[in-house]
Amino acid sequence: MTSTIAGFRFAAVSAGIRKDGRIDTALAVADRPAVVAALFTRNLVRAAPVLVAEERVRSGLARAILVNAGCANACTGEAGLTAARETTEAVARAVGCPANEVLPASTGVIGQLLPTAKINAKAKELAKSITPEGYELFAQAICTTDRWVKVAEAQVETAKGPVSVLGIAKGAGMIHPDVGPPQATMLVFLFTDAVINREELESALVQASDKTFNACSVDGDTSTNDSVIALASAASNIRVTAPEILPAFLSVCDKLARSMIADGEGANHVAEIKVSGLANEADAKRVAATVATSLLVKTALHGKDANWGRLLAAAGRAGVSFDPAQATIRIGGVEIVKNGVSTGPDAEKAASEHLKAPSYQIELALGSGAAEFSYLTSDLGHGYVDVNADYRS
Amino acid sequence: MTSTIAGFRFAAVSAGIRKDGRIDTALAVADRPAVVAALFTRNLVRAAPVLVAEERVRSGLARAILVNAGCANACTGEAGLTAARETTEAVARAVGCPANEVLPASTGVIGQLLPTAKINAKAKELAKSITPEGYELFAQAICTTDRWVKVAEAQVETAKGPVSVLGIAKGAGMIHPDVGPPQATMLVFLFTDAVINREELESALVQASDKTFNACSVDGDTSTNDSVIALASAASNIRVTAPEILPAFLSVCDKLARSMIADGEGANHVAEIKVSGLANEADAKRVAATVATSLLVKTALHGKDANWGRLLAAAGRAGVSFDPAQATIRIGGVEIVKNGVSTGPDAEKAASEHLKAPSYQIELALGSGAAEFSYLTSDLGHGYVDVNADYRS
Repeated sequence: MTSTIAGFRFAAVSAGIRKDGRIDTALAVADRPAVVAALFTRNLVRAAPVLVAEERVRSGLARAILVNAGCANACTGEAGLTAARETTEAVARAVGCPANEVLPASTGVIGQLLPTAKINAKAKELAKSITPEGYELFAQAICTTDRWVKVAEAQVETAKGPVSVLGIAKGAGMIHPDVGPPQATMLVFLFTDAVINREELESALVQASDKTFNACSVDGDTSTNDSVIALASAASNIRVTAPEILPAFLSVCDKLARSMIADGEGANHVAEIKVSGLANEADAKRVAATVATSLLVKTALHGKDANWGRLLAAAGRAGVSFDPAQATIRIGGVEIVKNGVSTGPDAEKAASEHLKAPSYQIELALGSGAAEFSYLTSDLGHGYVDVNADYRS
Repeated sequence: MTSTIAGFRFAAVSAGIRKDGRIDTALAVADRPAVVAALFTRNLVRAAPVLVAEERVRSGLARAILVNAGCANACTGEAGLTAARETTEAVARAVGCPANEVLPASTGVIGQLLPTAKINAKAKELAKSITPEGYELFAQAICTTDRWVKVAEAQVETAKGPVSVLGIAKGAGMIHPDVGPPQATMLVFLFTDAVINREELESALVQASDKTFNACSVDGDTSTNDSVIALASAASNIRVTAPEILPAFLSVCDKLARSMIADGEGANHVAEIKVSGLANEADAKRVAATVATSLLVKTALHGKDANWGRLLAAAGRAGVSFDPAQATIRIGGVEIVKNGVSTGPDAEKAASEHLKAPSYQIELALGSGAAEFSYLTSDLGHGYVDVNADYRS
């Protein structure tokens, strides 16, 4: 169950961008200019809305977020930049704020230009229809191949009272986020009623993203449009620091990341690949990411096959040094490999039972080091091929 | 059409390793100790036959290669090493050569121990049945998920006369070879009748492998068992250098690599991803490999969809610097992107026609640099999921 977030209102309409006529254009508006921090894709190829939003967040304040599905407005050159600017200007006029306080975000097919006129025609309707409860429509409108909406919330109790965080995300394919400052088609929007300064907001956002969005993958493909934007309305009148709000950010981002991976195109399972026993976290992350993105691992998980040879083979090509003869592998806590070799068919059978669950943990303990890292991945089956071999048709 | 190679004889039998009873154990024997060079997987997790063969090729001479399908003998600890040694010892006795002149190679399921007794029971039958024409049976026996056998040959004319190269390979999945000295489950065996010293043989093998096997991928997963072994029988009495034999090695290795990629599990197409216009070959290879291993690219190719946005997005996450606004993309010679944007729907439609062919080239020209690199990949569809979600059952 989620609830409204003080200081923000939302709306969504169909602007006719999607062929199927579903709602495709969403607006979030802060009652007053909100403190903003944002992280964008580190892909070298970056969509027009990413470039425009990145420029605008430098002011540290934002009033609104305009998001569309059905068109990524990526690889669209100068015309794409103009489209991102003109649509946000139309919304700014309708909202009654400067254009540079409206942040654009887009998701959909790469290479198609945003239909400016269609969106502009809906600007006033959008601005008029915003409500606190509208976040549900907002979450629906930004979905593309998603099977369900992604909304999460968390509260933190401070000495001065509670502050809340509401998170909304979309994403099911082209999910291998790599977002960072100053720069996911993961789109994530966090709204908080806390009073927080920009540096603290960004710090909490970076820390939460690195442990969640930057540690999950559906298909290994980093999008041109990934954006994580956090707005703080100050409506609670309760001032917080980054460490104070971080638990709520981590909670919301973890829920959203798990929901995105569970909704991975064609996927039925979420696997948390935990790599432990290495000397440093960077090495642990590199091995976990390599295992999590291995096609042979992901198809084995789809087949509910405790194929530990593929797990170990993927770890071995990660470019990180470890002794395979010391490797232990556990699936759902069942030890199927010890000292690099099988513990026998009974353990493997027991492990396979865990692979039937919607979510489970696979641990590769590769030595006696203290560092560990957990990475989320999905299984990969026919559904992924169906969605992506025919996505544009 | 291929023909026999002077100085070598071959045989294959069913040792009962495979459940289906097909021939699964193959032997190649040189009439006299042959000069040997070999490259093995750079995966940190390396199968027992790789460890044993690597140790034995240091002598520079080999008499025989013993290969089995159906069991990779990887991640099998000391017992695996013992099995690789004992089976090659049995074959050495039957052939009449020292055990360290017999090189083992295995392919199949990781984590299963090689059935020593089954192979040893067939050692004499194998050694007795070798014939020059037996290479055809050899090529059949080493196949696993392969839909066809991979055999190629080439000749080079020297001032002193012709020398021949015969190549035999297997591989359809877990194909992303990374082989090098001193170290796929690609297995490749090259046989030549040339007189060549070890250093020259290794030099030609490394150069040919880097442009072919190390530049192709089915699924991005580097095997624990990849082995490329070249034997020179000297039966032609014609001495050659590395540069002299390189064209024949390149020709044979290119044919075998293309055949492996065409036979990629569930694949219908071979795409040559050519990246040009960068400052150095390493950068060009990195971009080409990233595009070639992108799941979104491979599923688009399966759908015969000229989805250039995915091509450019994959290039953008390769970690190589280029200006997306200068990018040109051609499919089968049809320019679909110029200066980073679409050249229109007509070009895209023409390009899509090329994607119906069994093989085609996709070029990403990313700047004005002189370096380029070509990487082979396959499309990815339902067949890959079928083979790999159920491989062990």
